[in-house]
Order: sequence, then C-alpha cells, then structure tokens
Amino acid sequence: MKASGIITTTTDFGHRGPFTAIMKGVILSRFPEARVVDLIHDIPAQWPPEAGFWISKAYRYFPKGTLHVAIVDPGVGTERSILMAECDDHLFIAPDNGLLSRLLEEHDATLYHLDERALQTLGLGTPSSTFHGRDIFAPVAAEIAAGRLRFSELGTPTSEWIPDWIDPPDCQRGRVSGSIVTIDTFGNLISNVEASMIAAIRAPRVRFAGLELSMIETYGRATPGDYLALVNSFEVVEIARAEGNAADGLGVGRGAPVTIIEG
Amino acid sequence: MKASGIITTTTDFGHRGPFTAIMKGVILSRFPEARVVDLIHDIPAQWPPEAGFWISKAYRYFPKGTLHVAIVDPGVGTERSILMAECDDHLFIAPDNGLLSRLLEEHDATLYHLDERALQTLGLGTPSSTFHGRDIFAPVAAEIAAGRLRFSELGTPTSEWIPDWIDPPDCQRGRVSGSIVTIDTFGNLISNVEASMIAAIRAPRVRFAGLELSMIETYGRATPGDYLALVNSFEVVEIARAEGNAADGLGVGRGAPVTIIEG
Amino acid sequence: MKASGIITTTTDFGHRGPFTAIMKGVILSRFPEARVVDLIHDIPAQWPPEAGFWISKAYRYFPKGTLHVAIVDPGVGTERSILMAECDDHLFIAPDNGLLSRLLEEHDATLYHLDERALQTLGLGTPSSTFHGRDIFAPVAAEIAAGRLRFSELGTPTSEWIPDWIDPPDCQRGRVSGSIVTIDTFGNLISNVEASMIAAIRAPRVRFAGLELSMIETYGRATPGDYLALVNSFEVVEIARAEGNAADGLGVGRGAPVTIIEG
Repeated sequence: MKASGIITTTTDFGHRGPFTAIMKGVILSRFPEARVVDLIHDIPAQWPPEAGFWISKAYRYFPKGTLHVAIVDPGVGTERSILMAECDDHLFIAPDNGLLSRLLEEHDATLYHLDERALQTLGLGTPSSTFHGRDIFAPVAAEIAAGRLRFSELGTPTSEWIPDWIDPPDCQRGRVSGSIVTIDTFGNLISNVEASMIAAIRAPRVRFAGLELSMIETYGRATPGDYLALVNSFEVVEIARAEGNAADGLGVGRGAPVTIIEG
Repeated sequence: MKASGIITTTTDFGHRGPFTAIMKGVILSRFPEARVVDLIHDIPAQWPPEAGFWISKAYRYFPKGTLHVAIVDPGVGTERSILMAECDDHLFIAPDNGLLSRLLEEHDATLYHLDERALQTLGLGTPSSTFHGRDIFAPVAAEIAAGRLRFSELGTPTSEWIPDWIDPPDCQRGRVSGSIVTIDTFGNLISNVEASMIAAIRAPRVRFAGLELSMIETYGRATPGDYLALVNSFEVVEIARAEGNAADGLGVGRGAPVTIIEG
Repeated sequence: MKASGIITTTTDFGHRGPFTAIMKGVILSRFPEARVVDLIHDIPAQWPPEAGFWISKAYRYFPKGTLHVAIVDPGVGTERSILMAECDDHLFIAPDNGLLSRLLEEHDATLYHLDERALQTLGLGTPSSTFHGRDIFAPVAAEIAAGRLRFSELGTPTSEWIPDWIDPPDCQRGRVSGSIVTIDTFGNLISNVEASMIAAIRAPRVRFAGLELSMIETYGRATPGDYLALVNSFEVVEIARAEGNAADGLGVGRGAPVTIIEG
C-alpha cells in the first residue's frame, strides 16, 4: 500500500494545551511534507470506544493510503501494546486497548504489534511514561506516512487484539437492542445500531428513553420540538430533536439503551 | 476568477465529531493540493446569520480566488437550494437560507443556484439526507478550488436569495438602532451597527442594557471593570468590559438591542 | 538562522470567531507556502504566563527555524512594545508583557523591539487598536517565515523585557515551593517546579491541597480514584488523579501552591 502522505489524528487531549500541536511538530520535523488533519480531539477522557466508532466510520472518506493515528490511552506507560493495522487500503495505529476492535471486526486486516526495538530503529531515546503521542506515535506516523518504513519493519505480526469496551447490538428476529455511543454538537444521540441490522424489521419503531418513535428521513421533516429517529449519514440509528437538542431534552447520554422493534 | 486553491470552512458542527475533518478528507481525495482553513465551527446551532456576519467580515483577509464554504443548514435534506456567489474576487457557497444575504446586500455578485444534475457531473451518488457538507459541498468545493469547474457549469444563474434572518439597523438622523449579532471568547458583544452608519452622529453615545457609554479607542484605555463601547477592528460597534467579560457581567446576549445617539 | 516556513500560533482568542483564521488568511496572502500550526488558542483570557509556559515547553518539538507567534495581549492598542527573539535556533514574537520571560530566563537570546516604522516597510496602513494579531503580527510573521526579512531589519536591539507575571519557584535545601501554572483537559494540575529543582531532594514528597503524595512514574501505576504526583513528560511536577480529574476532585486551580519536601 502506498502512503498518501496524509495523517489523521484522533485523541482525548482536548484543546487546552499544546499536545496535538507538538505531535504535528514532531511529524513535520521528520516529514516536512506531511499533511496532518485533526479528526477529533474531544473524545471523552480515557474512553477508547468512541474514538474507535468514529475512526471506523470516518476513515473511508480520506484518500487511500492515509494513516489514521488514534490515541485514547489510559494505559500509557504500562505494559499495554501498540497495534498497527493495514485494512481496506488504509493504515491505522492505536494503543491495543479495544480502540480499533470495531474496525477489525468489520474488515479483514493485516496486524502487527509495535516492537520496542522499533524505537531504536527510529533513533528514539527512552519515551516518557505519559506522552507516547509525542514520543512514539508521532515519529512512527511520520516514517510510515513518508513511505520510508512499513508496519512489517516495525512490528511483529499478530492476530490478537483487546476487544471493544462496549457490546455490539443484540440482534433478534424483529428486535434489535443497542446503545448510544456518541453525541454530536447538536445533541443528536448516535447509536451503534447499523441500518443493515434493522433492514428486515417491518415498519421499524424506536424505543428510547420512554419514547416510541417512528423513523423519518431528515430533521426538517419533523415538527420543531418533536423527537425523531432516523438512519443517519453514517448508516446508524440516531435520535434527534427537530430544531432542538435531544440529549439535553431527554437528559440521557452515552450508554443509554435503544431498541428497534416492528411497528 | 482564478481559484487560489484555498478553501475556508464555516459550520455549526462544533468539535465533538469527525464532521469537518471528513469534509477535508473528501476535498483532499479530489484535490490533494487543497489548503483548507477552518474559519469557525462554533456557530450557534442552526443559526445562519452569525455565519453570514463573520463570512462578510472575514473573507477579504484571504487571497483573491479563495472559496468560502459555509454550512449552517437547518433545512438539510428538504427542498432548500444551494447558493453559489462570485463576489469581490472571492467565491462563496452556502445553503440558500439567508446565510449569504448580508454579503450580497453589500456587494455586487454573480449568483447561481446549484443544479441537481451537477451532482451527476461530479460522479456523485445520491447524497445522504443529513450530511450535505460531506456529500455535496465538499466535492463541489474541491472541483471549484482546483479550478477544474466553475459555478456557471454547476448551477443556474439567479438574482434571488432568501433574506437575512435579522433586520439591518434602523438608521435615523442622530439615532441608529441595531442589535448584538455575536459574542467573542472574551465576552465582547459585537453589533451589526457599522461605523459608517454613525459617522454623522456628533459625540456618539451608546445605550445598551441600561447603560449609556461614550466611545473610546481601545480596551486598555478604560478602568478595569468598566464597561466601554468602541468601533472594533471590523468597523462595527462593540460593547466590552475592561479586563472583564461584558456578556457575563451584563447577562445579555445575541439579539440585545443597541442604540447610538448624539451626545 | 534559516526560516523553516512553519509558524505556530498561540492566543487566547478561543474558537468562537474567525480571529485565528483571519491571521492565517493574512499570512497566506503574503506567503502562500506557509504552514501554520495552531499551538493553543484556549489560553485563559488575558493571562500571558500560561502562553509563556507552554511556548517554552513546546517550541523544541518543531523544526529549527520555526517562528512561534504568541498573542495574549491585554495592552493591545496602548504603548506596550512587541518583542522579537532569536533563541535556541527558533524565532519568537509576542507582546512585551512577560509572555516570553520564562523562555528568556532559560536561554540566551538575541532580542529586538519591533519598530513602528517596520509597519511601513511592510506596506501596512495604520493598524486597528484592537486586533494587532491581524494587522501587525500576521504580516510580520509571514515575511519572517518566508525568509524575506529578519528581525534585525524590523526592530531595535534590546536586552530588556517585562518580567513574568508569576514568581519562579522558591528553591531551598530539601524544600521547593512553586505553583500550578496550567490544567490540561484531563484535569491534571501542572506546576512550574522543574525536575532539576528537586533532583537533590531524597525520596521527594509533594504537599498539595492538604494531601501529601509520594511520586510515581505514570498514571496507570495508581489505584483508580487516587491522587498521585509525578514528573510529567515536560519535566515538571504534576498532580493527577488516576482515572479521574484532579482539578475537579480537589477544587483547586491555577496559582495553587505546591511544595516538594524530603520524604
């Protein structure tokens, strides 16, 4: 796979410090032509599943050969491994803590665990115990995105990874139960129930937070203030409020159960 | 007009998801040399006038031929049109919902409504109902900014557009009444009253939130804690608080009336 | 020193307006090949020391010849000077209000105060009174980063600068007292006590907010919920909470005193 020279970064580092910028500095120091795109830096602190959900949904909109770096890493500085994946013509690197599991359950992938000795290959000193984004992920990303090294030269093949922290939906005949995995800026509640999981359900209705909603096509089709359910542009079930904020209005959040039943 | 290869993006998508990054991915997939600059992504949800205010004030600081994409789009997925404008040597594309009206009232422009058939010209499939930023705006922006297509090849000429959601100031002799259109990070309250509207007012005084303020030149000229009014760097009247936050201190926000009278 | 073409920007402008984007537009208008990296824009309003702390810690991760622009500028539009520094193979420009003092106390530097006449050299008109980021810093940065001008052509040599707004730690034998200078997204409390200052302290213990903590290596080594102290990846003492938010949990913030004593 030919690297595109583009790197996306996903973290829970937020915007209050220079952390993601320093990663860019390290990347540009090794690979001045790199194009770094901030994917998300507002992942809830130390919660890998949300990063994994968005990575699995977002990567395909970037050019083939793009390297996606995701760092939500409660185990930084402990013995946790770093996982590298070639998958669907894209490249991924993340702590092996479940973050990439959703992606890997959906696609075939060639997997490696990063070797400690790779850090010497890159001329790196001993990394800090608390900022591997700067000391490991960024320099590795630069070399991979520049096309100077491949995952196979930095890691050991593997077929094992830590599973996702959240369960996949329970799919029964005529009934699918999942949960909210993220909330967007508008307060739309986005679930892990895929459109394909409910394709066989006739006239699906969505039970959520004491409501039972029929599904419509877009926000503008509902009366302002009404709650609504739809299959969103990432092909998962979403609960929204027309011209309003569903998360605030319903007082629910991540992890809340969603059930789709026959109408 | 020659495209500069620069695209600015303005949305109400916030920072909690990959939405603006996905637009960059789509743009880079079609036009790898694109330079995308985030203008603002914290526009209040579904409130086009604030995006329109800032676009009209900010565009001129970018190179000629820059394409400004603005998406604050409560009608996404309904019949609303998409407006494309060539104006003052810059290019603009936004939902036709009043967003560009302020700009178009201030400048001559060549206008088009995007044609449905244009999506086929671009080899696009059916867009989603809820994320036209990814499915329509980003690919159109890439082609325009790359200089491969022009608005005239993608749209139908028009001279009509939806008006602004907020009224322009009421300008009387010796008295101008406008309103607050946005609040910056410092809590400065920024109005739609242009310096030119009050040029004929002798010793102008600003009535706002029960205060009557004379106008000064800059924040540092006031006593800490005092409220003050000035013509800001975008040539509109602003109410601020020296070494403080005027919006918090006064408990007022967008839409609050401002009146400038003779002193 | 050869300019790298990279410019970092640090401000307290936040994300609610087009202010930092406009600076990029001005830079790109003069120097289309510029690479602008947002370092931090969430510095607490009008509080230069936090910008100075992070600049002094972050600059070294960028390529040599990078220009670091920092604007936290309560005195904008008054008589305050603008300081330009060549230091450790990097370039810096900031208001002369203490922002760069921490850096300058740690390193030798060649310093200049920007001359008013430099604005004419750059073909600039009279700057606004409230947005020197756009009207002075951005055009100067573009010319310097493009390698077309040097600080020596735009300023007057100086050896004076306004001191830091916060005191350096008080270092006694067996006892060092400093203070919290910033809080990251995780609620980790980051102090100005350098590892080198406590190197001679045997079995150091950290007194903070009524707690007395021993120092450990990384977050994952502590029991969830426990408070802990460590030397972080920027070589300063930090107080954290394992799988939690120390700032919220302890109810303390910037300026809180930290004392390191012998165990």
